[in-house]
Amino acid sequence: MPKKIVIIGAVALGPKVACRARRLDPDAEIIMLDKDSIISYGGCGIPYYVSGDIPDVKELLSTIYHAVRDEAFFRSTKRFKVRTSVEAMAIDRKAKTVRIRNIKTGTDEDIPYDTLVLGTGSTAFIPPVPGADLPGVTAISNLHHAMEIKEKIVKGKVESAVVVGGGAIGLEMAEALTVLWDVKTTLVEMLEQLLPVAVGPDLAGIIHRHLEENEVKVITGDRVSKIIGDPDSGVTAVETGAGSIPCQLVIFAIGVRPNTTLAREAGLAVGSYGGILVDERMRTSDPNIFAGGDCVEVKHQITGQRVILPLGSLANRQGRVIGTNVVGGNQQWPGAVGTFCLKAFELGVARAGLTKAQAIEAGFDAVDALVAGSDKAHFYPGHKPMFIRLIADRKTRRVLGIEAVSENCDAVKARVDAVAALLSHKVCVDEISNLEVGYAPPFASAMDIVNEAANALENMLDGRGEAITALEFLDQLDSPTLKVLDVRTRIEADPLVKRYGERWKNIPLDKLQERVGEIPTAEPLIVICSSGVRSFEAQLFLRQKGVANVKNVHGGTALVELLKKEIA
Amino acid sequence: MPKKIVIIGAVALGPKVACRARRLDPDAEIIMLDKDSIISYGGCGIPYYVSGDIPDVKELLSTIYHAVRDEAFFRSTKRFKVRTSVEAMAIDRKAKTVRIRNIKTGTDEDIPYDTLVLGTGSTAFIPPVPGADLPGVTAISNLHHAMEIKEKIVKGKVESAVVVGGGAIGLEMAEALTVLWDVKTTLVEMLEQLLPVAVGPDLAGIIHRHLEENEVKVITGDRVSKIIGDPDSGVTAVETGAGSIPCQLVIFAIGVRPNTTLAREAGLAVGSYGGILVDERMRTSDPNIFAGGDCVEVKHQITGQRVILPLGSLANRQGRVIGTNVVGGNQQWPGAVGTFCLKAFELGVARAGLTKAQAIEAGFDAVDALVAGSDKAHFYPGHKPMFIRLIADRKTRRVLGIEAVSENCDAVKARVDAVAALLSHKVCVDEISNLEVGYAPPFASAMDIVNEAANALENMLDGRGEAITALEFLDQLDSPTLKVLDVRTRIEADPLVKRYGERWKNIPLDKLQERVGEIPTAEPLIVICSSGVRSFEAQLFLRQKGVANVKNVHGGTALVELLKKEIA
Repeated sequence: MPKKIVIIGAVALGPKVACRARRLDPDAEIIMLDKDSIISYGGCGIPYYVSGDIPDVKELLSTIYHAVRDEAFFRSTKRFKVRTSVEAMAIDRKAKTVRIRNIKTGTDEDIPYDTLVLGTGSTAFIPPVPGADLPGVTAISNLHHAMEIKEKIVKGKVESAVVVGGGAIGLEMAEALTVLWDVKTTLVEMLEQLLPVAVGPDLAGIIHRHLEENEVKVITGDRVSKIIGDPDSGVTAVETGAGSIPCQLVIFAIGVRPNTTLAREAGLAVGSYGGILVDERMRTSDPNIFAGGDCVEVKHQITGQRVILPLGSLANRQGRVIGTNVVGGNQQWPGAVGTFCLKAFELGVARAGLTKAQAIEAGFDAVDALVAGSDKAHFYPGHKPMFIRLIADRKTRRVLGIEAVSENCDAVKARVDAVAALLSHKVCVDEISNLEVGYAPPFASAMDIVNEAANALENMLDGRGEAITALEFLDQLDSPTLKVLDVRTRIEADPLVKRYGERWKNIPLDKLQERVGEIPTAEPLIVICSSGVRSFEAQLFLRQKGVANVKNVHGGTALVELLKKEIA
Repeated sequence: MPKKIVIIGAVALGPKVACRARRLDPDAEIIMLDKDSIISYGGCGIPYYVSGDIPDVKELLSTIYHAVRDEAFFRSTKRFKVRTSVEAMAIDRKAKTVRIRNIKTGTDEDIPYDTLVLGTGSTAFIPPVPGADLPGVTAISNLHHAMEIKEKIVKGKVESAVVVGGGAIGLEMAEALTVLWDVKTTLVEMLEQLLPVAVGPDLAGIIHRHLEENEVKVITGDRVSKIIGDPDSGVTAVETGAGSIPCQLVIFAIGVRPNTTLAREAGLAVGSYGGILVDERMRTSDPNIFAGGDCVEVKHQITGQRVILPLGSLANRQGRVIGTNVVGGNQQWPGAVGTFCLKAFELGVARAGLTKAQAIEAGFDAVDALVAGSDKAHFYPGHKPMFIRLIADRKTRRVLGIEAVSENCDAVKARVDAVAALLSHKVCVDEISNLEVGYAPPFASAMDIVNEAANALENMLDGRGEAITALEFLDQLDSPTLKVLDVRTRIEADPLVKRYGERWKNIPLDKLQERVGEIPTAEPLIVICSSGVRSFEAQLFLRQKGVANVKNVHGGTALVELLKKEIA
């Protein structure tokens, strides 16, 4: 008798499982269920549909050759059965059946399975603030929400909007609302920085400024305490610590929760973060039930801990592994390092592994280096600044994370993906120093910025490059005891010397040997240049000359000025 | 007494060694020598200087903050001594001295060393064809050649040019001559394809067509047998198997030879490819002498063999390792996988590891898959086609190489660098299937094209995806026994059905189940779609239905049409 495979959930993971299983096994009886009527869509494309970049929602539902992925498509092209608008109500693990309810008719039915796959996804979370149930307050859990938002905007009903949550989806939605529709958008993030689980505070600061330059108002360290409006006309404002913000639309993008009611009620093991627990073959605590995608906890390959990583990219890879395993294969999915990228207006952001804060929290003695460089050779026209941070453990020198920002979005992905690929191999910083990435002037410097980041970090691990971050530096900028040595050329340094007087001394690097006597050896000193490279050279020289207490500003004035335009 | 470090060669490796050594050791006596008067330049930027993209040659000689890297710069800013226009004539390893000759005065002098570093580079090779010594015939070994070429062009003396050699530099020079200066350029490559040591013939075919579309005449499988002209007015034409080509400039870019006379005469060990032999610390057979850059042989991390890889990127990394080691450090340089990228007009090309041909030659049972996909999510506006080939060993499933082409140059680098980083870790195809690269619609598909390439290759390794390459397919296109099943939609397939009649049958994938009876089970059949994805689906289905002899065209019509525009 053919094997019966039942798949619950038909957005990202489910279709992948079903297609793969069918390719490997022509005989299995495969059925995929979803409570929604819309299935198999590119959920990560939602912000671009709302923005209008993707004009027709059908494109999110279609293959590259414009076939809509509906029931008929899966039946005729992929050769398995799909039922939509049916909700899985309960699993009888003993009888190996799923009770499903037809949402339109209300009738229930038991479907037998040999192997069951849970791809139940996650739901975006709306916090229980007063007014959260008003019309115009929404999360983005599915395409219906997206269509509702877009319809409202198209009808001209949204002059102002508040996006709550400074993660990837929050940023993408803020851009979507602003760019094409000119909606006055405020982004509110509870923590002190944007993308708090993705990058360090300085790269977040670059993104923060970039959003502001693109007309998004950004409020960090604050929260929406109340939503004002009435049930008929909908939301009219939100209240935050910083005051009231008028708006006709509130989008919550503060995270998702795994949809695990079905799994819990069936007695499947669930982890401390609320996701279904699976083994390396993506099998739940019941060997006949697999699960993957947003509803499971995954192993973080650096901490070894289980985490929630609701990423469409992972769901697809897991789906293929499950598809192999449900028909008798034996593939493993090794866990994840949280590689991720994001376009925010003109800025590309990418990261993998742990941020410095996460690394410290995970018990590592984390050391980081941030370098300012460029996406191409500095002599090649059109090169753009890029900032990369590399994070490692002091004792083992193991690389723990990388994060990068540049207006050359794909170039950011190139650097982060190359290091991300190695993170699970437990490589040391020294390997990244020698990392053999492609070089030609239109793509990189001969010593790529990713190598430079490793070199800087190696110097720090070897006790050669004590650093101060641009943000720490900005904190000290108004201190009367500030002592800065600017080793740039006179023309570069002059405006700051004029502004800060004796606190900001300029000795160009090429004059430092002859003028080193001007520098008191006892006082703490901060050296700065445009990027951190010349100042590192100066720092080493000064140290060799007995000026011991020298800190180098990583990222130099390039970063300092990006974070706060008017330092001169 | 301070340690005396003498470095011969001051282009890429030498300055890196000296700067690094100085940073680590304030006391060492460091002297860097070069026979040239121009030093420390970005040699890989030469094509962009010739093209005019880089207007002033000074930019190739300058730091990012516009300081020219000359003797004075290195003395004042980097704190070591440089002597130019002095040629190293001989090494006395017993006495530990180098005899140098002042090129201007002709006087000799012995310089003592404790540690010697050879960064003598390589020389571009001009073959001994008749006329090779005529004015206007040149290679590009240094900036002087570049300046001569540019001067000649600027003066309007070059209407037509011939570039000999279809490697990276040949392609870059062809672009340089064509784009800005409108020089009628012919590129002649001896082998049957462009970039023969970098990519497979089909990706080379894409590049070939792209050059032709950009007005470069490309001749492969041919050579320049004679250069015509006279010693006064210079070259006027070259003769090839395909006839005579008028030109006023001939650039040879057929490869380089390591400069090792000095090393050989000093009795240092030299390998079978003519490069100096070094250990993992970059030390020659004399423990007091290090060498790196274009003049050494390096270990290929896949074959384990020594090879010549004259890449500026490697010279820089090796230079840093040597700089550490000459002052008592202990760093290793692990070898290389030949990662490399190239922009040819609008096309980005990147590769790492072995081509399929190289893998077979190295004794692997090489299997490859080529996929056609896109640089972004297919629903995201502005996405561009990308082609990736992945190569693995059949038995061990170890990944041996990757190559990619797309008009999104940085996106190509992203895919290749991520896999390149893993090649030395001996990873299997299955790891690339799950490779966790960053995903967001502006950057990739949820299942990245690099994962898709691995999936396709895994299917082949598992005996599920017998393929035919686009070039093999084109060879059969006019055969009367050709039997093609085109599983695209009718609209897509119709022009080809009209042209090829019974030999080209169209059954759209979604109709294949009901119409499978129309397909004879015994005959060999080629399935095709736009990319290889739908046709793979069809191939599996047909096989399950007993149609055993089915081959899938990897890259589909997208690739076939790129290689030969007029198949319909």
